[in-house]
Amino acid sequence: MQQRRRRDDGIGLDELAQAARNHGMPLEAMRAAVTPAGMHYLLIHYDVPFVDPAAWTLELAGFRQPMRLSLDDLRARPVVTAPVTLECAGNGRVMFETRPLSQPWLLEAVGTAEWTGTPLAPLLQEAGVPDGTVEIVFTGLDRGVEAGNEAPFERSLPLDEAMRDDVLLVYAMNGQPLLPQHGAPLRLVVPGWYGMTHVKWLGGIAPAAQPFEGYQQAVAYRLRTTEDEPGEPLGRIRVRSLMVPPGIPSFPERTRVVGAGPVTLEGRAWSGSGAIERVEVSVDGSRTWADAHLEPAPAPYAWQRWTFEWTASQGEHELACRATDATGATQPMEAEPNLGGYANNAVHRLAVTVTA
Amino acid sequence: MQQRRRRDDGIGLDELAQAARNHGMPLEAMRAAVTPAGMHYLLIHYDVPFVDPAAWTLELAGFRQPMRLSLDDLRARPVVTAPVTLECAGNGRVMFETRPLSQPWLLEAVGTAEWTGTPLAPLLQEAGVPDGTVEIVFTGLDRGVEAGNEAPFERSLPLDEAMRDDVLLVYAMNGQPLLPQHGAPLRLVVPGWYGMTHVKWLGGIAPAAQPFEGYQQAVAYRLRTTEDEPGEPLGRIRVRSLMVPPGIPSFPERTRVVGAGPVTLEGRAWSGSGAIERVEVSVDGSRTWADAHLEPAPAPYAWQRWTFEWTASQGEHELACRATDATGATQPMEAEPNLGGYANNAVHRLAVTVTA
Repeated sequence: MQQRRRRDDGIGLDELAQAARNHGMPLEAMRAAVTPAGMHYLLIHYDVPFVDPAAWTLELAGFRQPMRLSLDDLRARPVVTAPVTLECAGNGRVMFETRPLSQPWLLEAVGTAEWTGTPLAPLLQEAGVPDGTVEIVFTGLDRGVEAGNEAPFERSLPLDEAMRDDVLLVYAMNGQPLLPQHGAPLRLVVPGWYGMTHVKWLGGIAPAAQPFEGYQQAVAYRLRTTEDEPGEPLGRIRVRSLMVPPGIPSFPERTRVVGAGPVTLEGRAWSGSGAIERVEVSVDGSRTWADAHLEPAPAPYAWQRWTFEWTASQGEHELACRATDATGATQPMEAEPNLGGYANNAVHRLAVTVTA
Repeated sequence: MQQRRRRDDGIGLDELAQAARNHGMPLEAMRAAVTPAGMHYLLIHYDVPFVDPAAWTLELAGFRQPMRLSLDDLRARPVVTAPVTLECAGNGRVMFETRPLSQPWLLEAVGTAEWTGTPLAPLLQEAGVPDGTVEIVFTGLDRGVEAGNEAPFERSLPLDEAMRDDVLLVYAMNGQPLLPQHGAPLRLVVPGWYGMTHVKWLGGIAPAAQPFEGYQQAVAYRLRTTEDEPGEPLGRIRVRSLMVPPGIPSFPERTRVVGAGPVTLEGRAWSGSGAIERVEVSVDGSRTWADAHLEPAPAPYAWQRWTFEWTASQGEHELACRATDATGATQPMEAEPNLGGYANNAVHRLAVTVTA
């Protein structure tokens, strides 16, 4: 049975080994619609492979017309650029009362980049998907050991999701060649899905006639409350909003100090299931809520900016924000616990001290 | 008296708030001579300011000819590009038996970028340094609260260090405009000095007739063993080497698994006091040492690559590397403890499991 940690007991040195190399997006980066290179969150399961793009090829095996494509081949295909918000399925893990040993995220495992690549679906059509295919499997060049077994990072998508018009094979980010840590030379981007879906350092794509049973699909990234249930696979990002912490921080505690008077609160909201329809803000410890001003989405799966005018009065305050998406889903005050510490989209609450 | 944490007690949630937003350089990035954007370590004391470069100016106040320069003014001056290794003075803090509440670094707070900017010394000469000046003070646009007091991030340099030929006012990194989190639009780079020296989001430069007494100079970043001594200010980076962990990692523990047979170990070594003259490697738990092959430095303050051919045999091994610089300084097995948890340049030791 997997070891669990209690929130109040702090973080183990093994978890720190993840936290020191991976990183969240400093929340003040939500001032920018497109997250600058290096501020986007990163969760790298194993080591970053340093791949020579000139020697690299993408292998489509198991199709009617197996193919091997170079980066130039992929760049010669139709080009699409879209802003897409990615969020780690484990974002908020440490906010649960207990969690498994993994990357100890607080709230910052999110970011929005402009991804440039070529649509996947026409390539699958050219390769010819065999009859009976139920999923498409994506294999990364990164390898590691999970529960004692060595394997590459691999994930699958149901065929209908893989055939969506907006699923991209991506080679550029924010107008620059993809950085090594973001999957260079090629990664998958599936708008609306949690981060583990967007396989980095893509080496192979293959059809599967049976649901894929790899570790990252059948063991990790499932919502379960007991170890002996299969659980539900994680997929689309749950509705969420976060706030740029107002004022200035203390070091090292990162408490917030705000001057009294008018303050424009701002943040971003997103959902993998549709547009955000409403963001509400509370400035009194979640007792009362008022609508924030919500800006339209720049693209179907890119976060939306919200603002809220607050008159800060001297004293201690707890601010909060919560979003509701087009399906009517709203952020809960507390998320349902689950063994993996996944999908914690609870209301963002933030204590601030207002000075005279 | 400042609260202290014991290594064996793990990491507090307050320390995690730093670790989640700052980040180290994944050690496998040492495969590259120049660290890719977004993989270079980052330690940001307060929030990242998002500065409009068109509205920004640099103020040189208190000089004989006070000046205010735009980014275009600075770009019109002589241009220098140099690879420089930066390391946080707190790198290795968690490896000490006890530490203060701060950023909980393991070993990854290092990186080497190609910095482009204009030399500082000619600008100071044009502005005219007043007689009696002992230091130059550099003020960032970032503000925070330290020990209850609000202040900008500010550091000083002794006048002779500020007048060195190789000290730069930097506006580009790795051939691209400086990223927001690295100090855009302008930062200081003082080759050879620990990271806190290279003030980001530079807003002002001023001469001082007395040693600067700001928090980051007089309280933080000093080597002391008791709270009532002034301590020695930190300056030049101590000699150090690190190793790219061979093989593949487990997730989430990040233990290492290596296949038996020939393995090229590699890493980088650097010092703020001169070239590296020797790197030694141990493959038997620091009992015996042998010289690694050392490559020359690409520039005076850029790290040097080393390699070592190892024949890995099945079983458990502890690898280690240690460097010696031109002054004869060598990495110790254990660094002297100090209250701030600074300058821990102990030998890098790494356990690996070799499989058949």
